[in-house]
Amino acid sequence: MNPLLREIRQSPLLWLLVFVPAVFITARIKHEAHTLLFVLSVLAIVPLAALLSHATESVAAKTGDAAGGLLNATLGNLTELVIAFTALSAGQIMLVKASIAGAIVTNTLFMLGTSFLLGGLKHHVQEFNRVSARLQSGLLFLATIALLVPSATSTADPASAPFTQTLSAGLAVLLIVAYGLGMLFSLKTHPALFAGAGHGDDGEPPWPIGLAVASLAGVTVLVALVSEIFVESVQKAAESFGMTPAFVGFIVVSLVGGAAEMGSAVSGARKNRLDLSVGIALGSASQIALFVAPALVLMSYFIGPMPMNLQFWPGAVVMMMIATLTAVFVTNSGRSAWFVGVLLLMVYMVFAMTLYLMPPGASK
Amino acid sequence: MNPLLREIRQSPLLWLLVFVPAVFITARIKHEAHTLLFVLSVLAIVPLAALLSHATESVAAKTGDAAGGLLNATLGNLTELVIAFTALSAGQIMLVKASIAGAIVTNTLFMLGTSFLLGGLKHHVQEFNRVSARLQSGLLFLATIALLVPSATSTADPASAPFTQTLSAGLAVLLIVAYGLGMLFSLKTHPALFAGAGHGDDGEPPWPIGLAVASLAGVTVLVALVSEIFVESVQKAAESFGMTPAFVGFIVVSLVGGAAEMGSAVSGARKNRLDLSVGIALGSASQIALFVAPALVLMSYFIGPMPMNLQFWPGAVVMMMIATLTAVFVTNSGRSAWFVGVLLLMVYMVFAMTLYLMPPGASK
Amino acid sequence: MNPLLREIRQSPLLWLLVFVPAVFITARIKHEAHTLLFVLSVLAIVPLAALLSHATESVAAKTGDAAGGLLNATLGNLTELVIAFTALSAGQIMLVKASIAGAIVTNTLFMLGTSFLLGGLKHHVQEFNRVSARLQSGLLFLATIALLVPSATSTADPASAPFTQTLSAGLAVLLIVAYGLGMLFSLKTHPALFAGAGHGDDGEPPWPIGLAVASLAGVTVLVALVSEIFVESVQKAAESFGMTPAFVGFIVVSLVGGAAEMGSAVSGARKNRLDLSVGIALGSASQIALFVAPALVLMSYFIGPMPMNLQFWPGAVVMMMIATLTAVFVTNSGRSAWFVGVLLLMVYMVFAMTLYLMPPGASK
Repeated sequence: MNPLLREIRQSPLLWLLVFVPAVFITARIKHEAHTLLFVLSVLAIVPLAALLSHATESVAAKTGDAAGGLLNATLGNLTELVIAFTALSAGQIMLVKASIAGAIVTNTLFMLGTSFLLGGLKHHVQEFNRVSARLQSGLLFLATIALLVPSATSTADPASAPFTQTLSAGLAVLLIVAYGLGMLFSLKTHPALFAGAGHGDDGEPPWPIGLAVASLAGVTVLVALVSEIFVESVQKAAESFGMTPAFVGFIVVSLVGGAAEMGSAVSGARKNRLDLSVGIALGSASQIALFVAPALVLMSYFIGPMPMNLQFWPGAVVMMMIATLTAVFVTNSGRSAWFVGVLLLMVYMVFAMTLYLMPPGASK
Repeated sequence: MNPLLREIRQSPLLWLLVFVPAVFITARIKHEAHTLLFVLSVLAIVPLAALLSHATESVAAKTGDAAGGLLNATLGNLTELVIAFTALSAGQIMLVKASIAGAIVTNTLFMLGTSFLLGGLKHHVQEFNRVSARLQSGLLFLATIALLVPSATSTADPASAPFTQTLSAGLAVLLIVAYGLGMLFSLKTHPALFAGAGHGDDGEPPWPIGLAVASLAGVTVLVALVSEIFVESVQKAAESFGMTPAFVGFIVVSLVGGAAEMGSAVSGARKNRLDLSVGIALGSASQIALFVAPALVLMSYFIGPMPMNLQFWPGAVVMMMIATLTAVFVTNSGRSAWFVGVLLLMVYMVFAMTLYLMPPGASK
Repeated sequence: MNPLLREIRQSPLLWLLVFVPAVFITARIKHEAHTLLFVLSVLAIVPLAALLSHATESVAAKTGDAAGGLLNATLGNLTELVIAFTALSAGQIMLVKASIAGAIVTNTLFMLGTSFLLGGLKHHVQEFNRVSARLQSGLLFLATIALLVPSATSTADPASAPFTQTLSAGLAVLLIVAYGLGMLFSLKTHPALFAGAGHGDDGEPPWPIGLAVASLAGVTVLVALVSEIFVESVQKAAESFGMTPAFVGFIVVSLVGGAAEMGSAVSGARKNRLDLSVGIALGSASQIALFVAPALVLMSYFIGPMPMNLQFWPGAVVMMMIATLTAVFVTNSGRSAWFVGVLLLMVYMVFAMTLYLMPPGASK
C-alpha cells in the first residue's frame, strides 16, 4: 500500500479522508444530526471521489488504449452513479432526476466555465481541439433532445403515464447504443481526430494494477456507504440552510459528485492543456446524459419501489437545453479567453439564483 | 420511347412500375382491402417518383442553367406536392400538416443521416461545400421560424382562429418571396458560392426533351391517381398495423414521398460526392418548407372544404425546430464521418419512437 | 456654436430639428391631437438622437480610448434609455418591456439585416471580424437567457410574484456585472481581438469638448421632454392607425429609438466597413439587454408607481431568443452577401406581421 499512502501524504485533498470514519461514527451515535451528517458526508465524498478517479485511471492505463478508454469512459462518473443509485433505492426519484439534470448543467457550465476563466487568467488566449469538442457537444445535444421529448410529449393527463414509461425505457436503450457507437468512433475508427484530448492523464504515475483494482472496489463500497448517509441527510440539512430541494439536487449534489473532476479540469486549464479540461467537462456531461441517466432508468425496473422515467421538470429541460446550446456555441471556435469562462459562469449563476429563490413546490 | 424503356430495363427500382396497374385494378375490385391497397400504392409511388425526378432533371438539363435550376427547384418535390394536394382536396388537413412537418424532419435527419452514415462507412472523412449547406440551412431555419410563429401565438381561444388564418396566408406569401430570392441568389447573383453543389446530376444521360416533357405530364397524373388511393387507405391500414395517425403522417408518408431522392442522396454519398447529398437533403427540406407548404396554404383557399393554416401540433414544431438546429449544427464544419450520420439518425429514431408510442389523440 | 450649426446646415437629417419646437407648441395648444403629436414627436426624436449620438462620440474621442469606449458603450443607447425612463415614470411598464424586447429584436434583425442587404447590393461578398461578432452575440445570448428565466419559471399563480421580483432584481445585478466584465475584456485585456470593430467612428470630425458636453446635456433634456409627449400620444395614435399595442411597443418605438444608429450602421455597410455595422447593431442590442433593461429594473424601485420585473410576454421571449440565435448563426462565418440580409429581414417581417395582426390583449 506504499503508493497509496505516499499519495495521501502528498495530496492535501486526501487528508479529508479522515472524515470518512468520522461520518460513520457520527451516523451511529447522532443519527438525528442531519446538518452535521450532511457536512461530514460531503467532506468524505470529495476525497473518495478523487481516489476513485485515480484508481480508474490507473486500471485504464494498464489495460491498453481502447479497453482503458472504455473503462475510463464507463467508470469516470462512478461517484455520481453510486450516489444516484443510492437515492434510487431509497425511492427518491425526484432527487435522482434533479441530480442528473444538475450534473449535466454543472459540468457544462460550471466546470467548463471555471476552467476557461482560471486558464484564461493565466494564458492570454487558449486553443483546444474543436473536432473532439464538437463530438462531445454533439452527443450531449442528442442526449438532451432525448431527455426533452418525454417531457414535451407527456401531458398532465395521468393516462399518459404508461406511454411516458415505455418511451423512457426505449430512449434509454437508444442513448446507450449511441454512447457505445460514440466510443467505437473515438477509440477505434477515428482516434486521430481526438489527438490531444486525453481524459485525465495528469502526469501522476499510475498505481500498480493490484492496488488499483483493490482501491476501485474498496473505495466504491465506501462511496456507496457514505452516499447513503448523504442522501438521507441532504434534504433535511438543506431545509435548515434555507435551500430549496431543487437547489440541493441541481447544485449541491452535482458539485459534490463532480468535485474530483473539477480539480483535474481546472488544473489542466492552468497548465494550458485546455483539451484536457474540455474533454473532462463535456465528456463527463455526455457520459451522465448518455450512460448514467439511461442506466438508472433501466436499473430502476429492478431496484427501488417504482420504475423511473425520463420526464423532467420543464425548467430542468430548459436549463439542460440552454447549457448544451451554450456549450455548442462556445466550443465552436476552438479558442478561449477568460471572458468566455465568465459567460458560462454567468449562465450558471442565473440558473443557481433561480433555483435558490424558487418557491418550494414549483419544480414539479 | 426507347430511352425510357432502356432505363426501365436497367434499373431494378423501375420494375416496381408493375404495381401501378396492380393498384388500380385492386382498387376497382377490392375497394375495402385497405391494407393491401396501402402496400400496393406505396410500391407504385416509389418508382413513379423516381421517373418524375429523372424527367424533371432531363427537362431542366435542356432548358439551360438558370431556368433549369428554377424548374428543378420547383418540381423537385412534385411527388410530395401531389400527395399533399390529394389529401388537401379530401379535406384531410391533419394529414397534410403531418406530412409537411414529417418531410422536413425526414429529409433533414433521415436522408442526411443515412447519406453521412453510408458515405462515412466507405470514406474515412468526407468534405462538402459549407457555404451552400449554410444557405440551405439558413433558409430552412427561416421557414421553421415562420411555421413556429402561428403555433406559438395562437391560443386555444377559438376567437383567434381568423387571426391564425390571416397570419398563415401572410406568412405563406413571405415564404414564397424568400424562396424566390434564394433562387435568385444561388442561380443568378452568387452561383460561384455553390460550385459543386449541383442538384441531381448523377451521371445518367438526360432524355430527349419531347419524351421528358411527356413523361413529366403523364407520370404526374399517375402519381396523382395513385396518391388518391394511398391517402384513402393509409389511415385505415395504419390502424391495422397498430400505428398512430401521427406516425403515419410524419414517418410513413414522408418516407414514401422522398424515396426517390433518398436513393440519389445516398448514391452521391457513396461516390464521395457529399455536396450532392447535402444539396438534395437540405434543398428538399427547404423547398417543402418554403414552397410546398405555403403553396398548399394558398391553394387551400380554392380547393378543399376549408382553408388550411400554418398552425401545427406543438410537438411537430419542436421536432422541426430541433431537426433544423441539428442540421445547422452538423453542416457547420463542412466535414463529416460516419458517426455524424449516427447522431442524425438517432435524433430521427427518438422522434419516430415517440410518435409510434404516442397515445392516439395526443398529436392535436 | 459654429461646428454644431455647420453640421446642421450640412446634414439634411438635422433639418428635422424644426419639429422640436413644433411638437412643444402643438402639445401646448392642441393637447388632444394624439395622432399629430405622435407624428411630430417621432420626427423630432430622430434628429435629436442623431445629435446625441454625435455628442457622445465627440466626448468619447476626447477622453481617451478606454474611458471613451466606456462612455460610448454606456451612453450609446441614451435615447432608448430616456424614452423607457419616461414610460416607466408614467407607470407604463408594459410599454417599457415591449420596447426593450423590441429594441433587441429590431437591432439584431432589422438593423443588421438592412446593413447586410444594402451593403451586399453594392459589394459582392463582405467580410467582418468574427471574434468581435461572437463576443457580442455571446453577451446577447447570455442576456436573453437571463430574460427568459423569469418568464419560464414564474407561473400564473400570484403567489410567485415576490419570487419573480426578487429574481429580476438579482438577475439585473448579474447582467450589469457581466456587461462591465465584457467592457473590461474588450477595452482593457483583449482589445486586439476587436481591431476594426470600432463603434461609430464615421469620419466626421469630433466637436470641441465644451460644445460636446453642453450638447450632451441639453439634447438629453430635449429628448426627455419630447419622449414625454411621445409616450403619452403613442398608444392612442396607434389605435387610430389600427395598430396593436404590441406592434407599437415592439416595432414603432424601437425603430424611432434606434433611427440614428440605423443610419450609421447602413452607411458603414455601404462603405464596405461591415465591422462597424455589426458592432453597432449587435453592440446596441447587447447594451440594451445587459445595461438598459437591468438599469430600468433597478431604477424602477425609486421611480414609478411599482417596481418592474423581467417577466416578459412568452411571445416576446421566443422572439428575442430566435433573434439571438439567428444573429449567432449568421455572424458565425464572418462573411456576408445580400441574401443573408434578406434572411434577417424576413425573420423580422414574420415577427412584425404577427404583432400587427395579433388580436389586442393576446400579448400579455
